[in-house]
Amino acid sequence: MERLPGFRDFYPEPLPHTDTWSADARQFIFDKWRDTAKRYNFREYDGPPLEPLELFTTKSGEEIVGQLYNFTDKGERAVSLRPEMTPTLARMVAAHERNYKKPIKWFALPQLFRYERQQKGRLREHFQFNADIIGESDPAADAELIALLIDTLRSFGLTEQDFVIRLSSRNAWHDFFKHGGGDMAHEYAFYQIVDKLERTSPEESEKKLSVLGFSIADVNQFIESGKPTAELENILQNLAARGLGSFVKIDYRVIRGLAYYTGVVFEAFDAKGEFRAIAGGGRYDNLVKLISGGKVNLPALGFGMGDVVLLEILKSRGLLPKFDSHADVFVLIEDETLRAPSLKLIQDLRVAGFAIEYPLTPAKPDKQFKRAQELKAAFTAKLESDSYVRIRNMKSRDEIVAGFADAANHLR
Amino acid sequence: MERLPGFRDFYPEPLPHTDTWSADARQFIFDKWRDTAKRYNFREYDGPPLEPLELFTTKSGEEIVGQLYNFTDKGERAVSLRPEMTPTLARMVAAHERNYKKPIKWFALPQLFRYERQQKGRLREHFQFNADIIGESDPAADAELIALLIDTLRSFGLTEQDFVIRLSSRNAWHDFFKHGGGDMAHEYAFYQIVDKLERTSPEESEKKLSVLGFSIADVNQFIESGKPTAELENILQNLAARGLGSFVKIDYRVIRGLAYYTGVVFEAFDAKGEFRAIAGGGRYDNLVKLISGGKVNLPALGFGMGDVVLLEILKSRGLLPKFDSHADVFVLIEDETLRAPSLKLIQDLRVAGFAIEYPLTPAKPDKQFKRAQELKAAFTAKLESDSYVRIRNMKSRDEIVAGFADAANHLR
Repeated sequence: MERLPGFRDFYPEPLPHTDTWSADARQFIFDKWRDTAKRYNFREYDGPPLEPLELFTTKSGEEIVGQLYNFTDKGERAVSLRPEMTPTLARMVAAHERNYKKPIKWFALPQLFRYERQQKGRLREHFQFNADIIGESDPAADAELIALLIDTLRSFGLTEQDFVIRLSSRNAWHDFFKHGGGDMAHEYAFYQIVDKLERTSPEESEKKLSVLGFSIADVNQFIESGKPTAELENILQNLAARGLGSFVKIDYRVIRGLAYYTGVVFEAFDAKGEFRAIAGGGRYDNLVKLISGGKVNLPALGFGMGDVVLLEILKSRGLLPKFDSHADVFVLIEDETLRAPSLKLIQDLRVAGFAIEYPLTPAKPDKQFKRAQELKAAFTAKLESDSYVRIRNMKSRDEIVAGFADAANHLR
Repeated sequence: MERLPGFRDFYPEPLPHTDTWSADARQFIFDKWRDTAKRYNFREYDGPPLEPLELFTTKSGEEIVGQLYNFTDKGERAVSLRPEMTPTLARMVAAHERNYKKPIKWFALPQLFRYERQQKGRLREHFQFNADIIGESDPAADAELIALLIDTLRSFGLTEQDFVIRLSSRNAWHDFFKHGGGDMAHEYAFYQIVDKLERTSPEESEKKLSVLGFSIADVNQFIESGKPTAELENILQNLAARGLGSFVKIDYRVIRGLAYYTGVVFEAFDAKGEFRAIAGGGRYDNLVKLISGGKVNLPALGFGMGDVVLLEILKSRGLLPKFDSHADVFVLIEDETLRAPSLKLIQDLRVAGFAIEYPLTPAKPDKQFKRAQELKAAFTAKLESDSYVRIRNMKSRDEIVAGFADAANHLR
């Protein structure tokens, strides 16, 4: 029986097959995400993986339904597996924001789902690090969030040789569009053309832009000018004060595809240009108001970083550790008359915090020792009697004999 | 906009509302689950939250569909959100068991889903700690798994005054049924009557039992005898050798509802009888063979422990910590001309591993200090110039002035 296409099985390492994913690498990534978020004093939240379909169509319109993992449930509700976390966050914050001091700094590690046209090997789920700041309109919040993004990537050992944050602003594009005489009703259509510039032929882009009264030459000139707005200048100076200036550059080619972004937008890119964007985000100052039906109005911004591209780049840079099985101590039971006190030793060592392995059933001494080696156990421990334990340091090969109650002290 | 009925929002503490759940308590529980599993040298795995419907009906029959969160996806596949982890585990192990030394000791922390008749307040999802041992038929494996269950509950501070493992065996019931002249075609129907004894009136049970040729008096006599089989005796002695004997008792009322159990079964119960079962499990020696279509045949056993009942019992026993927001250091910025070097200090302290909070925008000194108190910051740090930092221990109220580069050393 096979799993569904586009879904992943996560196995303990060493991986049994090229078509499997590492549960250990996933946990390694989650731990780094959590640790960095905590150093920035972000707090964890989560919502349901399944939400009313309406939560996702409210902000994006009905056209998004084609990409959603949506269905009708047994209670005749239109529902969807979550394709992103931001609408859930906006719903949760709108419901209980009075309980929290502003700015709210929250993060989540949701699994997200999409159901797009089947492309071979295309995943239908991934995990994402989502971090958001809600209730602060000052660019200082944008800088704080981008610093978190930079330090998250640095926590994996990535450097300014590996990635760059491309910083842009819909406000800058808004001014360009307005001063160029654009019809404000078509502003978002214009953003979508800019968003696809790098993936579209110049002829095609020119055609689409001319309908809105713009030329590709004008657009390219604006991009190449790269002049930061006052807001972006503020963010650059803030990041420079932290010593993070070299990780960021203004790049107006970034504008982001989602409809709800309102101001600063940014993406983290592989500096060598081999991979898709590692992370992306921006301001969405109107979304909480929209989701709450006008009841709560709070400025907000956030980013999402997926596990799949991150894993690819860490692998390619040799920054992903191996996670072979291991145990702190392998307890050898060579004399079956000592199995009962050996079980007591195992129990005591586990209570003391050690990861312990041992032969569940009688096994030959050389087979036990081989297993201890395979598990990369730091020590073996073997009862010599009810009262004494022979402890072997597997690296130095030093052996000592300790009293039963004293064994744990020789295993640090 | 509301979330779907039966799903939970997880908020940072202090909780904003009685209808919300604590993301901090959830992470506290997950951390204990992972830590104990690792001390027992179990390794983490995970599978998709969505599986082919067939994976769950193969072992349980079509009647289970009424309780599943199943639907037809856009590719016309019959699929279901996972109601339990064991079929996914059996599928994964069957696919790649040759890669792993036996016994395989694995755990997972899946979110599981059910769609039952709507009962007010009834949850449709929960999280579960699943631990399984695959490839070992000896009762030593049962003892190892039950020891893990006991130590998991003990890791939360629960003692033998709080819970008891009720140990039983389908093999014992099999012998009773066979020797009593039962028709083996109705064996599972008989188990289901026994499983519901405590929730069914004696008259109703008597009626159902008599159809199968048994009386409630015979059944009760067998339960009261409580005589352990050789296999159960072996497990009891193994646990006693570890010093865990007082946590376990034979109780034949436990037989478990699922069809696939084949031998030893057990449940962890609140000793005061206030709550539903905290955990349950047993042997399922035929399931891997069934799921793999006969290709792989491995004995197996496992248990599941949900987060909801566990949370209730920890709350009632006062064993759940408070998880108020906190920061290691609150950096005060009273002089805005020192904001830039303050940002550098913040960056350096975060890189050194500290959780840092600070005012994103200019704020009055007394308001900043109050915020540091609310966040239960261990220290405040304030630049006196580009070069010196005043550090205050918020508990002892001691203050010192340190050099910029030396500040981290005074915060341990």
